[in-house]
Amino acid sequence: MLKVEFKKIGIPEKQLYLTETTTDEKLKFNEVLIEVLFFPINPADLLLVEGKYGTASPTLPSLIGAECIAKVLKVGKKVKKVQPDDIVMPLTRDNWAEKLKVTEENLIRVNRSINLVQASMLKVNPATAYLILNNYIKLNQGDKILQNAANSGVGTYIIQLAKYYKIKTINIVRRKETLKELKKLGANKIILNNLKNNKIITNKVKLFIDAIGGPEVDKWASYLEDHGTIINYGLLSGKNIEINTNKVIFKNISLKGFWLSLWLQKMSYSQKFNLYSHLSELIMKNVLHTKIDQIYHVKDIKKAVLKARKYKRNGKIIVAFKKENIKKYI
Amino acid sequence: MLKVEFKKIGIPEKQLYLTETTTDEKLKFNEVLIEVLFFPINPADLLLVEGKYGTASPTLPSLIGAECIAKVLKVGKKVKKVQPDDIVMPLTRDNWAEKLKVTEENLIRVNRSINLVQASMLKVNPATAYLILNNYIKLNQGDKILQNAANSGVGTYIIQLAKYYKIKTINIVRRKETLKELKKLGANKIILNNLKNNKIITNKVKLFIDAIGGPEVDKWASYLEDHGTIINYGLLSGKNIEINTNKVIFKNISLKGFWLSLWLQKMSYSQKFNLYSHLSELIMKNVLHTKIDQIYHVKDIKKAVLKARKYKRNGKIIVAFKKENIKKYI
Repeated sequence: MLKVEFKKIGIPEKQLYLTETTTDEKLKFNEVLIEVLFFPINPADLLLVEGKYGTASPTLPSLIGAECIAKVLKVGKKVKKVQPDDIVMPLTRDNWAEKLKVTEENLIRVNRSINLVQASMLKVNPATAYLILNNYIKLNQGDKILQNAANSGVGTYIIQLAKYYKIKTINIVRRKETLKELKKLGANKIILNNLKNNKIITNKVKLFIDAIGGPEVDKWASYLEDHGTIINYGLLSGKNIEINTNKVIFKNISLKGFWLSLWLQKMSYSQKFNLYSHLSELIMKNVLHTKIDQIYHVKDIKKAVLKARKYKRNGKIIVAFKKENIKKYI
Repeated sequence: MLKVEFKKIGIPEKQLYLTETTTDEKLKFNEVLIEVLFFPINPADLLLVEGKYGTASPTLPSLIGAECIAKVLKVGKKVKKVQPDDIVMPLTRDNWAEKLKVTEENLIRVNRSINLVQASMLKVNPATAYLILNNYIKLNQGDKILQNAANSGVGTYIIQLAKYYKIKTINIVRRKETLKELKKLGANKIILNNLKNNKIITNKVKLFIDAIGGPEVDKWASYLEDHGTIINYGLLSGKNIEINTNKVIFKNISLKGFWLSLWLQKMSYSQKFNLYSHLSELIMKNVLHTKIDQIYHVKDIKKAVLKARKYKRNGKIIVAFKKENIKKYI
């Protein structure tokens, strides 16, 4: 079976390679053998290869892959939650491999008729958007929130979920070309980051969702109401978050971080199952949808990664293990 | 009656002046006439004159003074909480005046035998230290906390309260000369800020109390446990707080601000009365004590302010309206 791995920390498209290995298909009583159908390439995957993701360095050679969608091939003797031919999303990492053995406690079964490409992105970005919007401050219909990297995976899910909740989004983007697309998704206001006009936000917001860091965090924090909250979930600028002390003390602005791994660690299986069932229903209802730039076959993993790292893309980069599966989705 | 005021935003010792005015001593049914005995000069008072304090600019000419200790001279017809000769602490601002009319809801009565100089500093710093230690994270006996500006008013109360609670303090200071004094107060560890040795903190801390801001916040945040909290309550560096995004996301470090005014606004009278009764008892028991550099007479207000702004002092600067009161405390 094919799998993607890397032996050295470095530039993702140089370090990642495809390799073949055999799988011992014997299962323990609670294990499930699954066949990975599609996986997306996320910024967090690439940061792992660059040695910039998470708290510990990966043991090398290292597998990779935050998420995927898969089909159940075979189940262990006592497995109850899933059966062969079910479509499942593993909660484990290291998913860029053709076949995986996963315990049933780490599988979420989704509706078989879900769009599999969309479902391959269920674990990370929709859950990030959902948990950020639902767990830090109470947002009511008509409330305003501000986010940057609005054209990112999480950003577009934030827009779609906020629209569903009737919360208004003000969205900061770098490229004019994204305006039309985001408007279509339901963005209420879109601001180009290079604009000199600082008066563009007229009503203050309750929440600022930041994926970039750096000194600009302070600039956008100026648009927060007193007692407002900044949630940072991304490292895109690679720079320290900066906030003026006056805002922290006199306006009572607070800063918190979001990391999906920490959330999943503290949730029970049924909490995770409920979360992902809800989100997969929203995908089935087309409330949540992500634009796809291209689906690559896994043999082109280097090309796919190179494209995923490009600033100007027209959607997400997806990888499939079987060419016939790609055909179904183009 | 004498009062201190300023007509222009600027350098405190230049702008502040003493002036005389008459007081209409007629009281409304719920008002109390008090005679101010002592007041301390706090950094926040000086920031007000410099136009750097709080959310709104003061209307000029402006009175000044965050806190004081006073004696009740006369009470309105329906006043029940206090009576003549009581020692009281006003919750209102603009306290650098010989006589004040305050509603009884804005007065906290303290034990008449309290040390009046110590009691003149009851409102701001002990309450700041108390609320920071008791309201953000659960601290247990033996837990470790880190603070900078450890030799400041708040800093020394943090050390004394933490000792009382059996919480261990690691204290960052700028001057070697302060080490002995802080050790005597109960500081468990003292670190000179110019030390190159970053390994000096061996056990991680739960809480980092920051009064300085700037890029150093990130350096000290490295000593926080995962899920640790930074509370910022001071603007001493005048620079933006900086925190590395990795700490915010992967270590779940959060940043909150503390402003006493916001706390007092949301507390009921009885909550405030209980807080200050508890703190004044701790002053009576000598659990809380602040070193005094000098007590000035109010006619020397410019000298007093100049001394208060000096980097090297040997304690707090206090001002009295009557020379005979100064004699009792030296």
